[in-house]
Amino acid sequence: MPDAPALNGVFAPLTTPFASDDHISLPRLRENLARYNATRLAGYVITGSTGEAILLSWAETEELWAAVVESAGAGKILIAGTAAESTAETILRTRRAASLGFEVALVRTPHYYQSQMTPDTLAHFYRKVADASPIPILIYSIPQYTGITVEAPLVERLAEHPNIAGIKDSSGSVQRAAEMARVAGKRFRVLVGSAGTFFASLLVGASGGILALADALPESCVELYELATSGKIAEGRALQQRLLPTSKALVSRGGATGMKYALDQLGYYGGPVREPLRPLSEAARKEIDEVLAPIRAQIAG
Amino acid sequence: MPDAPALNGVFAPLTTPFASDDHISLPRLRENLARYNATRLAGYVITGSTGEAILLSWAETEELWAAVVESAGAGKILIAGTAAESTAETILRTRRAASLGFEVALVRTPHYYQSQMTPDTLAHFYRKVADASPIPILIYSIPQYTGITVEAPLVERLAEHPNIAGIKDSSGSVQRAAEMARVAGKRFRVLVGSAGTFFASLLVGASGGILALADALPESCVELYELATSGKIAEGRALQQRLLPTSKALVSRGGATGMKYALDQLGYYGGPVREPLRPLSEAARKEIDEVLAPIRAQIAG
Amino acid sequence: MPDAPALNGVFAPLTTPFASDDHISLPRLRENLARYNATRLAGYVITGSTGEAILLSWAETEELWAAVVESAGAGKILIAGTAAESTAETILRTRRAASLGFEVALVRTPHYYQSQMTPDTLAHFYRKVADASPIPILIYSIPQYTGITVEAPLVERLAEHPNIAGIKDSSGSVQRAAEMARVAGKRFRVLVGSAGTFFASLLVGASGGILALADALPESCVELYELATSGKIAEGRALQQRLLPTSKALVSRGGATGMKYALDQLGYYGGPVREPLRPLSEAARKEIDEVLAPIRAQIAG
Amino acid sequence: MPDAPALNGVFAPLTTPFASDDHISLPRLRENLARYNATRLAGYVITGSTGEAILLSWAETEELWAAVVESAGAGKILIAGTAAESTAETILRTRRAASLGFEVALVRTPHYYQSQMTPDTLAHFYRKVADASPIPILIYSIPQYTGITVEAPLVERLAEHPNIAGIKDSSGSVQRAAEMARVAGKRFRVLVGSAGTFFASLLVGASGGILALADALPESCVELYELATSGKIAEGRALQQRLLPTSKALVSRGGATGMKYALDQLGYYGGPVREPLRPLSEAARKEIDEVLAPIRAQIAG
Repeated sequence: MPDAPALNGVFAPLTTPFASDDHISLPRLRENLARYNATRLAGYVITGSTGEAILLSWAETEELWAAVVESAGAGKILIAGTAAESTAETILRTRRAASLGFEVALVRTPHYYQSQMTPDTLAHFYRKVADASPIPILIYSIPQYTGITVEAPLVERLAEHPNIAGIKDSSGSVQRAAEMARVAGKRFRVLVGSAGTFFASLLVGASGGILALADALPESCVELYELATSGKIAEGRALQQRLLPTSKALVSRGGATGMKYALDQLGYYGGPVREPLRPLSEAARKEIDEVLAPIRAQIAG
Repeated sequence: MPDAPALNGVFAPLTTPFASDDHISLPRLRENLARYNATRLAGYVITGSTGEAILLSWAETEELWAAVVESAGAGKILIAGTAAESTAETILRTRRAASLGFEVALVRTPHYYQSQMTPDTLAHFYRKVADASPIPILIYSIPQYTGITVEAPLVERLAEHPNIAGIKDSSGSVQRAAEMARVAGKRFRVLVGSAGTFFASLLVGASGGILALADALPESCVELYELATSGKIAEGRALQQRLLPTSKALVSRGGATGMKYALDQLGYYGGPVREPLRPLSEAARKEIDEVLAPIRAQIAG
Repeated sequence: MPDAPALNGVFAPLTTPFASDDHISLPRLRENLARYNATRLAGYVITGSTGEAILLSWAETEELWAAVVESAGAGKILIAGTAAESTAETILRTRRAASLGFEVALVRTPHYYQSQMTPDTLAHFYRKVADASPIPILIYSIPQYTGITVEAPLVERLAEHPNIAGIKDSSGSVQRAAEMARVAGKRFRVLVGSAGTFFASLLVGASGGILALADALPESCVELYELATSGKIAEGRALQQRLLPTSKALVSRGGATGMKYALDQLGYYGGPVREPLRPLSEAARKEIDEVLAPIRAQIAG
Repeated sequence: MPDAPALNGVFAPLTTPFASDDHISLPRLRENLARYNATRLAGYVITGSTGEAILLSWAETEELWAAVVESAGAGKILIAGTAAESTAETILRTRRAASLGFEVALVRTPHYYQSQMTPDTLAHFYRKVADASPIPILIYSIPQYTGITVEAPLVERLAEHPNIAGIKDSSGSVQRAAEMARVAGKRFRVLVGSAGTFFASLLVGASGGILALADALPESCVELYELATSGKIAEGRALQQRLLPTSKALVSRGGATGMKYALDQLGYYGGPVREPLRPLSEAARKEIDEVLAPIRAQIAG
């Protein structure tokens, strides 16, 4: 097994650009990537929740993965979301991502059979995937979508596995991030998935974030990371406060739909979401317009 | 669009038999079906939650569907679970099921992006699937797995669609079943998915059930249906009371794992579940042994 | 200990009439009771959730209890809500209710320290209260207000106590009512607290109900009880269906506030609720007006 | 209205000492206070959740308040928990606390009628109490006990009231603390109620904490406050990490029961809890013994 790349800093969980005919648009993807490559983002996550991964066919997933590997800038760490409900299918996808050049696999907790997904079952699942994976894996806990919360004691058990590089915890709990950082040890990384608690999480031991907000505001997220890691508390707190309403409007309320609308306003390609997701309501668009207005003024200026 | 078959009585949501090498065993499936064909079950649901549908590949799903159509007894109504998260994929699967000979498609609520799955979004989804489907569809609400609860007002809106034949409501709420039966009208059918409330639900207006318990005890479930529909309240209540602990042990606590273990004890083929699901704990097996003991004694006698 | 009175049929959990100066109005209470005395209600519950008990001082509670005992019609079973968070205080109140002439005490689960209220702690609590009480007690489970759900295994343990006469279960789960009826035995009574599942609950083993809806529509609730207990399923189902929207509008959505507004429309005295409760919104009033219109027309006719 | 005292730093929500006969022991209270007076705690909260306030009679509450005012050290800010479900009763208690010498009243959200406790209703309640109170009030949000979560928009509305000095937010959400600090303005204070997120909350804008953990480890909590406010991030993070398991064992799992047991081990008087609360289980005692062992060794050394 190769060493895990250094999972520090800000990663953007990219949206999947669809053309108006609902097909993936690789040209749009490359345009977005060209812009992201010029930022200080540490890397990209493809086919995560923000990427509408669960709405893609397997053929689309492979096509997208190949295109990202081809267009990502040098030094950007590439992470593929490879989860399926079945263990065997998850392993197949993880191996395919590795063979295409991804360095890390992000593996969401299986969750359909919620009441059966005990810590023991999840431990068995992650060890089996990690054993079979040619690349390091990240545990992915996102209770708001899955109903499954990975707690610190399970992280402590799994952090001993040499091919489990860390966790993306999107629960939004700073205490949980601290507990995980405490039990996890030096090698194991805690990345958080919530921009609204990014600053505080870094201060209690997280090493970075996979932040949907970084799709829209990559440099602001990187700046927040740098303020936290350089101990500039007052400035960091102020920036975190400014980013809070933006994060809530774009991500917490809007999901992939809100993010794509925001990208369209900010010069990226957002485009439509795939059904069953529906276009943003007028009210939600207005709320996003309002939080983006000062940012757009700054860009225009 | 063809008329929907009469969705009354008891349907069994079949388990998917895996051999010890984790492949689907069609011979075992046929053996089970041969026994079920001899019962008074109204029909079968394939690739539902109890069928571990979410753990099957598409190729396996097609193979299984074809085998069931071939082996099902005359007069048994065949229902295929065709849900995927994406609307387009759900339509593709539904059409394939229709072309193989299924009469009804059971379409679970999309749910990964929970907070986006508003009643309006779900109404749009179901209408689109129903418009595109060659066979009538059933809405499928199973909040314990999906986090999404279909309520009566949404049912009222969807019941007007000529190609939406009814709902399978696994929420376990008798009041909700009654409200749905009230708003739904004569043509639209309310099937419940919970054996523990089957008797009461029939008495307040449900027309039948898709009951995992019917995999293990098909005739008892049919008997309960008949007692309810013929107004034999005292006898029905007594049978419901007897079935309650069995249903809790096999289904509520054990899921597909508990059901497969029970099938193995009752002369059907249960076999292993697919990972990430894990074999039943010793304690759960013991609990099932206890509730099955009197039933096995009766069979043996 | 005296024998428990027969806890069958429909009990009304009376509202507490406040004058416009926020004092309890005993004349209004007596007027309401005079009308209720003429119905076939089995009895009354005073100082329950619908009675805004938690907003009354101890002096008001005693005054109210005395007035009810004085004005209740012959043969009406009188039940006092006597719960406080502290065990000792609950016992004091229960003894006082007994000395004033109440025949049964309704004792809600203590709940403020939710995570400490394990089945063992609740069992200890109820046994201690029952041991000290001169009159039989009823367990009272109302998870929507308390966050505490009493399950059937706890009921089974407590049903053995000679001074615990039954349970009022307001959880709305028909399966739970059936499980409780099954474990409880002949002497122990299961009363439900939800009009929306009253009919079904009776059919699976409940012996009656303490129904807020009976404050507004006592005779309809009694009729539903009689249809269920005399096996008139089709008529009972139809009446249950008619009562469902009324129950939702008055009770589920409106609580004591909705009920008092409805009473004012139906010739009883409702009057204001006590703060922090607030007057009903215009929209809620309109919804109640709509469900009451056909009932008022019938009364007027 | 007097100016609110400066609500910064660490406040201890004191336990209520009961003798073995279940009566309040004022001598034990005075002993504890003598020790707390010697610490750098900013003040005390009496009759809060940790103080088993809801299990006290009104006479006991007044007796306790008077004793605390008498025995508290100079400069310690005194906060009384004055909430009752009824608005009028809350005002009575708040006035009594003021007349006895308390400087601030801590007013928990009314919560029994959960579904009625909308933001508008809560705003009306708090304004009415603040208008009537001779001393500034603190909003108290503790969703784990009440089911009611106060969110930032409500705080923004209430922060304008000159007699509402701040909020104690025990939700444990660092993002919510940051949002409240952002909307609240300079005068309004955000105090958190969760030791596990104290450090992070201070860094994002909280001004202090009312921490049950400070009953057992007052100086450690004060040290954590000082590390945060002086920008010593690495040391603060390390101390927060050390305190996390202690806080979970004593407070999150044990409540008042765990805290009293821990106090007994640390040289304070803990004593019994009042029923329905029950003595700590053997397992919980052992867990607390383990986390306290290094602390007791340090004290003993």
